[in-house]
Amino acid sequence: MADVKTSNQPAHPALLIPGPIEFDDAVLNSMGHYAESHVSMPFVNVFGETLSMLRKVFQTENPASQPFVISGSGTLGWDLVAANLAEPGDDVLVLHTGYFADSFADCFKTYGANATQLKAPIGDRPQLDAVEAALKEKKYKLLTVTHVDTSTGVLSELKSLSKLVRRVSPETLVVVDGVCSVGCEEIAFDSWDLDVVLTASQKAIGCPPGLSIVMCSERAMKTFEARKTPPGSYFASFVNWVPIMKNYENRKPSYFATPPTQLIHALHTTLTQVLSSPLSERFARHREISDKVKAAVAELGLKQLAPKPENQAHGMTAIYLPEGMTPPEILPNLLKKGVIFAGGLHKEIATRYIRFGHMGVSVMDENRPDIDRAITALKDGLAEVEKAKK
Amino acid sequence: MADVKTSNQPAHPALLIPGPIEFDDAVLNSMGHYAESHVSMPFVNVFGETLSMLRKVFQTENPASQPFVISGSGTLGWDLVAANLAEPGDDVLVLHTGYFADSFADCFKTYGANATQLKAPIGDRPQLDAVEAALKEKKYKLLTVTHVDTSTGVLSELKSLSKLVRRVSPETLVVVDGVCSVGCEEIAFDSWDLDVVLTASQKAIGCPPGLSIVMCSERAMKTFEARKTPPGSYFASFVNWVPIMKNYENRKPSYFATPPTQLIHALHTTLTQVLSSPLSERFARHREISDKVKAAVAELGLKQLAPKPENQAHGMTAIYLPEGMTPPEILPNLLKKGVIFAGGLHKEIATRYIRFGHMGVSVMDENRPDIDRAITALKDGLAEVEKAKK
Repeated sequence: MADVKTSNQPAHPALLIPGPIEFDDAVLNSMGHYAESHVSMPFVNVFGETLSMLRKVFQTENPASQPFVISGSGTLGWDLVAANLAEPGDDVLVLHTGYFADSFADCFKTYGANATQLKAPIGDRPQLDAVEAALKEKKYKLLTVTHVDTSTGVLSELKSLSKLVRRVSPETLVVVDGVCSVGCEEIAFDSWDLDVVLTASQKAIGCPPGLSIVMCSERAMKTFEARKTPPGSYFASFVNWVPIMKNYENRKPSYFATPPTQLIHALHTTLTQVLSSPLSERFARHREISDKVKAAVAELGLKQLAPKPENQAHGMTAIYLPEGMTPPEILPNLLKKGVIFAGGLHKEIATRYIRFGHMGVSVMDENRPDIDRAITALKDGLAEVEKAKK
Repeated sequence: MADVKTSNQPAHPALLIPGPIEFDDAVLNSMGHYAESHVSMPFVNVFGETLSMLRKVFQTENPASQPFVISGSGTLGWDLVAANLAEPGDDVLVLHTGYFADSFADCFKTYGANATQLKAPIGDRPQLDAVEAALKEKKYKLLTVTHVDTSTGVLSELKSLSKLVRRVSPETLVVVDGVCSVGCEEIAFDSWDLDVVLTASQKAIGCPPGLSIVMCSERAMKTFEARKTPPGSYFASFVNWVPIMKNYENRKPSYFATPPTQLIHALHTTLTQVLSSPLSERFARHREISDKVKAAVAELGLKQLAPKPENQAHGMTAIYLPEGMTPPEILPNLLKKGVIFAGGLHKEIATRYIRFGHMGVSVMDENRPDIDRAITALKDGLAEVEKAKK
């Protein structure tokens, strides 16, 4: 096996890490859009439609929900939350499932909020009874949860978590880090009563990196409007961005900072594709492929970081390597076979596991052999590395 | 006249606003690069080379100068300065030449610094004796200057300004907002002893929007390292970004937030083009075309916002419309002729002027008819609108 040409793109190894993912030809073509003014009507219409489509992707019909699409990495989403929805001195409960909770907690600290982390063992997630006890102990302005932890492949359950928060601490905002879940895991923003879901363009949504994407509920926007202190960031301030997002969605030119016009076109293209069939089918397809990957992993005698099926993400799989094998041994072998996986990211065990991303076009486009080739490459690669070590 | 096909791009009106500008075919092709891991060596090498090339574009040979390329709008550059180089309570002197100084001052205020604005009349810039008097009155941690004010077309003189600061207040950092100047105006970072120059990708550098680009001097980095308080932003924190930028430039994979891989490729492509001939020729060509535009404007009996030749930018021209004519009258006429200019941005006089951007490929590529067509369109358009009003 070597690199194959599965599209109009040059032959290249299949990128199967938990983001960035492979991109569709039409999306990459949109990236090369000719220069446009950010305040011209053709672009304003595209940006406005993009914001409206996001409402459908997040499944929110409340007109008071507020979408944001801002030039930046996914990380900027944390600043958007911490600088606008928390105030100095506020308490925030951060549910910890891996690497990303530590960073989100750091971000809150930067803006003066107190972040309390509720930790679970590696591969698990905080249990509802522990969350309930924590919520009863102190009044938290926000609770954050990483929907899919890219460092561990752990999936959190949002529906029951949100129900619990509403029962025990109804004013607490439920903030979902959906960087590795939006576009591949079910998220029913309205019916699950979520307050913030933040994500990035380069994961299951299938647009190149460079866009921070956030949906806020009516409750979240009211919390923002009731602030006693100004937001702690300038570039991430809702004071600056809310009028801009409202204007673009209402097809009115508006300026605070120049939007990344080509990336917005690419996002428009991929969201159009995502919404061209029912979201339920998209989520079902990701579950189906995830089951196939996880069955293959089990057949190879390998264990996942997340042992419980109900904790396992559907857009990625974090896999412990055989005893004594390290990522620098197996990853170059897979690359030679035309497949790119990612190494470990969770500091305590980074050298012991690899991550396989199965999201977006590699999963949805039945003509792409990416997933089957990756499973075969993994099987052959492991055997070759084992053999070479003997 | 209608839209013309001057490249491999679809026919479209020539974008001649002060950014985004027209992009070269090779740059737009780089935007469609296939998916790559942000920590793979092919991408790490491209990002590393990009950072090294920026040193040449800014004309700095001091290895302790620090380049940054971060996913975000040009506006993010203000946060990078205000959150990392100023501390709460610090005094900052903001030289005001238009719209952007007000916003930069707001940004400093967000992070707790006290911004004092030194204002000039519209179309002019603060004079050196006034700057000297201000510097003697109070100790300023930073002085900021907008090299080219996109709202007025006013050019500031950096060399003598920096010399003055070193003489009167040697520790004050000289911060240049070069959003509309880097790539079209001479900037000699080392020999003029500048401390920060910030810019955005979509102006004279010629890469689509979505990258904040900053160069910091050794003195600026020492000021950052001597901070007594942590930076006020998380996404814009040098604590997070300095190790990442150093690692990429040393060709080592590194992760804080996913870089916008396609935009980095496009920046690499355009910087390679910019550096393919001496920078002095590039600046001379921009001056030559600017002289031509300004002569044509004078011949039409129109006045510039910046009346003094030494105050006039070379990458754009801000032009007062004939008495009684407004941007909504002339701009659609120009659009029909295949040319896009921008309306006014300076709040007090926004309805009385238009802005003509002449930067990058429209100026450097002698095969492109953009500038000549724009001058003809302006002449014809003004006559038609005048006639229709009679």
